[in-house]
Amino acid sequence: MNSRTSKNILSEKLYNRAIKVLAGGLSRNTIYRDPHPLYASEAKGAYITDVDGTKRIDFANNMSSLIHGHSHPEIINTVVKQIYKGTAYTMGSEIEINYAELLNNRTNGFEKIRFVNSGTEAVMTMIKASRAYTGRTKIAKAEGTYHGTYDYAEISQSSNPTNWGDVNNPSPTQVVDSTPKSVLKDVIIFPFNDIKRTLDILDKHAAEIACVLIDLVPHRVGLVPAFKEYIDAIYHWTRKNHVVLAFDEVVSYRAYYSGAQEIYNITPDLTAMGKIIGGGFPIGAIAGKSEIMKVLDPREKSLKHPHSGTFSANPISTTAGYVAMKMFDKHAVNDLNNLTFLAKKQINEAIILADIPACITGMGSMFRIHFQEHPPRNFRESYQDSNTKKIIKELLDYLFIEEKILLMNTCTCMLSTALIKSDIDHLTQALLNGFNKIKPLLKSAK
Amino acid sequence: MNSRTSKNILSEKLYNRAIKVLAGGLSRNTIYRDPHPLYASEAKGAYITDVDGTKRIDFANNMSSLIHGHSHPEIINTVVKQIYKGTAYTMGSEIEINYAELLNNRTNGFEKIRFVNSGTEAVMTMIKASRAYTGRTKIAKAEGTYHGTYDYAEISQSSNPTNWGDVNNPSPTQVVDSTPKSVLKDVIIFPFNDIKRTLDILDKHAAEIACVLIDLVPHRVGLVPAFKEYIDAIYHWTRKNHVVLAFDEVVSYRAYYSGAQEIYNITPDLTAMGKIIGGGFPIGAIAGKSEIMKVLDPREKSLKHPHSGTFSANPISTTAGYVAMKMFDKHAVNDLNNLTFLAKKQINEAIILADIPACITGMGSMFRIHFQEHPPRNFRESYQDSNTKKIIKELLDYLFIEEKILLMNTCTCMLSTALIKSDIDHLTQALLNGFNKIKPLLKSAK
Repeated sequence: MNSRTSKNILSEKLYNRAIKVLAGGLSRNTIYRDPHPLYASEAKGAYITDVDGTKRIDFANNMSSLIHGHSHPEIINTVVKQIYKGTAYTMGSEIEINYAELLNNRTNGFEKIRFVNSGTEAVMTMIKASRAYTGRTKIAKAEGTYHGTYDYAEISQSSNPTNWGDVNNPSPTQVVDSTPKSVLKDVIIFPFNDIKRTLDILDKHAAEIACVLIDLVPHRVGLVPAFKEYIDAIYHWTRKNHVVLAFDEVVSYRAYYSGAQEIYNITPDLTAMGKIIGGGFPIGAIAGKSEIMKVLDPREKSLKHPHSGTFSANPISTTAGYVAMKMFDKHAVNDLNNLTFLAKKQINEAIILADIPACITGMGSMFRIHFQEHPPRNFRESYQDSNTKKIIKELLDYLFIEEKILLMNTCTCMLSTALIKSDIDHLTQALLNGFNKIKPLLKSAK
Repeated sequence: MNSRTSKNILSEKLYNRAIKVLAGGLSRNTIYRDPHPLYASEAKGAYITDVDGTKRIDFANNMSSLIHGHSHPEIINTVVKQIYKGTAYTMGSEIEINYAELLNNRTNGFEKIRFVNSGTEAVMTMIKASRAYTGRTKIAKAEGTYHGTYDYAEISQSSNPTNWGDVNNPSPTQVVDSTPKSVLKDVIIFPFNDIKRTLDILDKHAAEIACVLIDLVPHRVGLVPAFKEYIDAIYHWTRKNHVVLAFDEVVSYRAYYSGAQEIYNITPDLTAMGKIIGGGFPIGAIAGKSEIMKVLDPREKSLKHPHSGTFSANPISTTAGYVAMKMFDKHAVNDLNNLTFLAKKQINEAIILADIPACITGMGSMFRIHFQEHPPRNFRESYQDSNTKKIIKELLDYLFIEEKILLMNTCTCMLSTALIKSDIDHLTQALLNGFNKIKPLLKSAK
């Protein structure tokens, strides 16, 4: 512990100041590390340097939001030009139209779009729009999935064996203390990737459900892709029951050119986005069918969903997002996914070499390493006991401190186009070294 | 209509593209104008220029969020430097600590702070933190006040005579269609600035209320300041009943150096902020007592309110906010409020000269013009019938088109430090001209 802190003297000093003025010393629990978070002094491309001068390869990319790595010249040069013309107006700006056109051309079924300020706001607006459109109030979502901090969206995100209940009827569990009981009643929980149980549960509440909220590759459910037949079944169920099919692609939109939905050959009614579509700046968006998006239209005689936002569609976030997504064209998506494929292939070889029980899940430019023989199919199978969490922390600390590699704290990589093959080779070798370090721990855990 | 649109050919063209790709052709209903919104090409200091080349004096400042006007050199030069070092990391950055220290030193009772991405997120987090701290679920808020788009916060924001019910017990009304009924039950509505009725209503639900949510100068309730005795009474009621006193200063923090709360001599438990504290970039924050903010601390054994956010405390918004608020020191606040005082004085003279029934409400650098003899004291007194709305629209269109002045669409001005006396003189003369134009309409409305 002491040797670890002494290497990060300046970060430690900053955190000692931070705990006096910020709740928990930070504004995002995801960046917390024991004994203290580290502070960045600068970042460029695939590299991030902390205040103590240590430079690391960045495989986290601000929780998956930087598809081109840090400060890509084309993005920041365009943004800087816009900054001198203003950062926010009580008027529209052309860039929000250009950007809406770009995104709507990109994904089938994006007929209309609305920008907001975060993924949390996007999912909240999507749920409220679904209610306003259907006249129903409940939502259905998968156990364990993260969809931001709106109460209804976060139910059961942190369920555990002591409270998750019968798998045939998973209990809705609160994330924040004293969440209104009615919120728990208004959220129907189903087990991810389980067709029969999911449809049985949905059927019971069919007439009350406004939308089925689905992340096709939910990070907190093991970053395991939904089975094709599973999404097909839910799609057909929503058609039969006039329920809005609402995809949360805040994270997964990076997976393919048109989002993860591209490979499912299904057009949802609404899609929420965030992360990479801001080009490194705060943004969120919902997109989908005109007929539903109309609830937001102030020209309608009866406006069902009044909605504004001081910084929604501000010209900085939309400029950065526009440039980033324009560069993330079909070739760039393909190249990045090929690089990720190579990474997974090499890491699988490292797993075999190290002879440890491990496997890799993911899609497109995202992957997650699990320390079990078979990939999890749902939240309960991906649930980690405290011992597994400890082993992963050992590995991540080793990678971070000794190998100078930054991963997401679930042992997940979200690649950027700034990475090159030598970075992947470094990651593979580092993981192999790490696997050998934790191997004894994995054995004793059996 | 035709002559109006023909002057804004390029904005009209843009909007015709926008309606094909954006819900209602925009992402913020507040910027909608009949027959179409205008689009900004650039803005600098106190001036905003639209795509058709018309330059206007900006008294709206992106719905009150630009305290130094557009693209202040000191803000943007510092932001641009940061942009080249990265816009968002999966690590902390020193600037969020510097900024938290600055804000906590600024306002008594800001012991700990947490940054989020918008005013909406700030109020939502404040309500959830209040629930987690008190173990109660209901909230109480004033009729007609706007607190962002979180369901619980927006209840009764758009009440009207057909649904607002008995003033002794105002009905909670939904803003978005098919808001869950339970949300309406969990929000207690009281009439602003009415001590007896407010306390009677609060008393009835004392044991269930997590927080009383108050905007000290609510824009949608006529931008009328809360009476000192009213806030005193609520403060003492919350002390007696162990209820969190939660101030929404997203708009009003600009009013005095320590926010509007400075002149009430009361320390709330929690305060939500947004708008100006982002220096022109998306931000939100909650600040308050350590004992309560502890619910957000990930180091606590039992974490009551898990909370993150991909762009929370990002180094761009915090850098811009830090520079803006550092410049908005006691002298700058004082100078701006003096300029606003002068504006109100001159406009009052114009009201007398024009001999119309009108009055001005507001606080600090904010004011709103009402077309009634006496200032409203609450939402019902400030409620505008469709005829009054039409007259105000006439006036705003005249100011916008003929006088080249941008106001907020409620006839409200939110001043910036970029404005000078000659801008105020222009505004006064323009309003006098406008008052004379609408005088016949005001007379026939009587």
